[in-house]
Amino acid sequence: MFQSRLQDAALAVETHLNDVMREMGDLPVVEAMRYATAGGKRLRAFLVLESARLHDVAASQAIWPATAIEAMHAYSLVHDDLPCMDDDDLRRGLPTVHVKWDYATAVLAGDALQTLAFECVAHPDVSESGAVRADLALTLARAAGAQGMVLGQALDMAAETSPVPLTLDEITALQAGKTGALFAWSATAGARMAGADIAPLLTYAQALGLAFQIWDDVLDIEGDAQKVGKTLGKDEKAGKATFVSLLGMDAAKSRARDLVDTCARALDPYGSKADTLREAARFVIARDS
Amino acid sequence: MFQSRLQDAALAVETHLNDVMREMGDLPVVEAMRYATAGGKRLRAFLVLESARLHDVAASQAIWPATAIEAMHAYSLVHDDLPCMDDDDLRRGLPTVHVKWDYATAVLAGDALQTLAFECVAHPDVSESGAVRADLALTLARAAGAQGMVLGQALDMAAETSPVPLTLDEITALQAGKTGALFAWSATAGARMAGADIAPLLTYAQALGLAFQIWDDVLDIEGDAQKVGKTLGKDEKAGKATFVSLLGMDAAKSRARDLVDTCARALDPYGSKADTLREAARFVIARDS
Repeated sequence: MFQSRLQDAALAVETHLNDVMREMGDLPVVEAMRYATAGGKRLRAFLVLESARLHDVAASQAIWPATAIEAMHAYSLVHDDLPCMDDDDLRRGLPTVHVKWDYATAVLAGDALQTLAFECVAHPDVSESGAVRADLALTLARAAGAQGMVLGQALDMAAETSPVPLTLDEITALQAGKTGALFAWSATAGARMAGADIAPLLTYAQALGLAFQIWDDVLDIEGDAQKVGKTLGKDEKAGKATFVSLLGMDAAKSRARDLVDTCARALDPYGSKADTLREAARFVIARDS
Repeated sequence: MFQSRLQDAALAVETHLNDVMREMGDLPVVEAMRYATAGGKRLRAFLVLESARLHDVAASQAIWPATAIEAMHAYSLVHDDLPCMDDDDLRRGLPTVHVKWDYATAVLAGDALQTLAFECVAHPDVSESGAVRADLALTLARAAGAQGMVLGQALDMAAETSPVPLTLDEITALQAGKTGALFAWSATAGARMAGADIAPLLTYAQALGLAFQIWDDVLDIEGDAQKVGKTLGKDEKAGKATFVSLLGMDAAKSRARDLVDTCARALDPYGSKADTLREAARFVIARDS
């Protein structure tokens, strides 16, 4: 069920991204935006759509925040890949935006993708309730900004010049910003749209985000570069602390499995209606890319 | 009256920016955000606050979108100054963010300032009406994105590699995005908050933005680098089309004066209550920085 729902989410978001970018013309910056938002697992969009489904929010409304979070995620990847940041040439097996176009186009396309994310969550079709639209915009900003995703990236940058490697607590805080904040926003979006309690989905998403990041560190060591679609082993080579370097491979995998159990239990209030989300958590620590 | 209102706006925004960034800690990216939002004329914030005053919207509410637009403007300056864009070392007479910190910090600080802008317009204290908050977020996104400010920047980049200089129509379209879109959003924000017709203020702002840009081109030739606070004559040296190169200096100034008349007439529905905004338009083509 999860795999087909994930595919449905990917297709729906792809279509909707094309729709919202149709009128934007064909300047290089817009072509770069289209390129940067193509492909990917669409896990965040899936979380939005699935949490909406749990609360009987119409898919035609939930597609807007689902598209928004993929635009936001794409912006963060384009800027993270820049020469001044992680300096990555490959993303999803293809040249990164600054390689395919140029530095300036990558900065600008990332900028416009962030803007597009807010345009999507604040769109009138998201909800008849202005309060819901404003709440989605506010919480998305908090998740993405200097106390969320950007904080995670800034901590990551600070760690690179620090003489001592990060502790487990520090790397957990870093990842809570870098990956966790957007995961948490995605998984709670449906509850927000329905005006329901976000607590169970928040617990689910926080554990999911951490499990996801631990598994990224596992893949950085054990993964197949062809499948993962990016350069592997960079963290190890740079002597960067990761969950695997701090815990050891076995304990890291075991911790990820525990987190997946936490994910499943957090969804108890939803009963079997949330089975697809439970399956998603198991997928996160089984994926090879 | 205008000068004292502009000073009041500057002080109010400065205070509010400090408030919203107080809890953000002291990582380099946050210090860079504070640095990038310090100083400047605060003309956009003034437009928000003044349009709010025209519609009897409380200043305690209007300060949020006023702060938002200054954060958005600051983000655009930090990224425009980057080596891959305009490669400017000086801004407001001080080292630009990538010079004072580094490239990565400048990219990230700009990113987080854009996010902060949306956090401010969607804040619950902006309005009891969720619809108003969502409308401000949506229209701000449209003004800033790939069909507004980013479009202007992208057209500017395209012009640099084009073998033929821009025509007057093209440069007008470029500036409508680069400067005009944020001006228009600022000057209409108060009307949006009050649920009033935005048309008169929109006409005012579009003429104001164009006059502002023409005057920037005038200052690029006739200005005092010390007062303007940035490197002058770059456009001329690069053979870039400007309003002055296309119209000639006298006709450019005359066009700017006509636009200021347009500004004044657009505000007829508001009578003398809008005199400060009329004065602001006259200031735009009298300023030396």
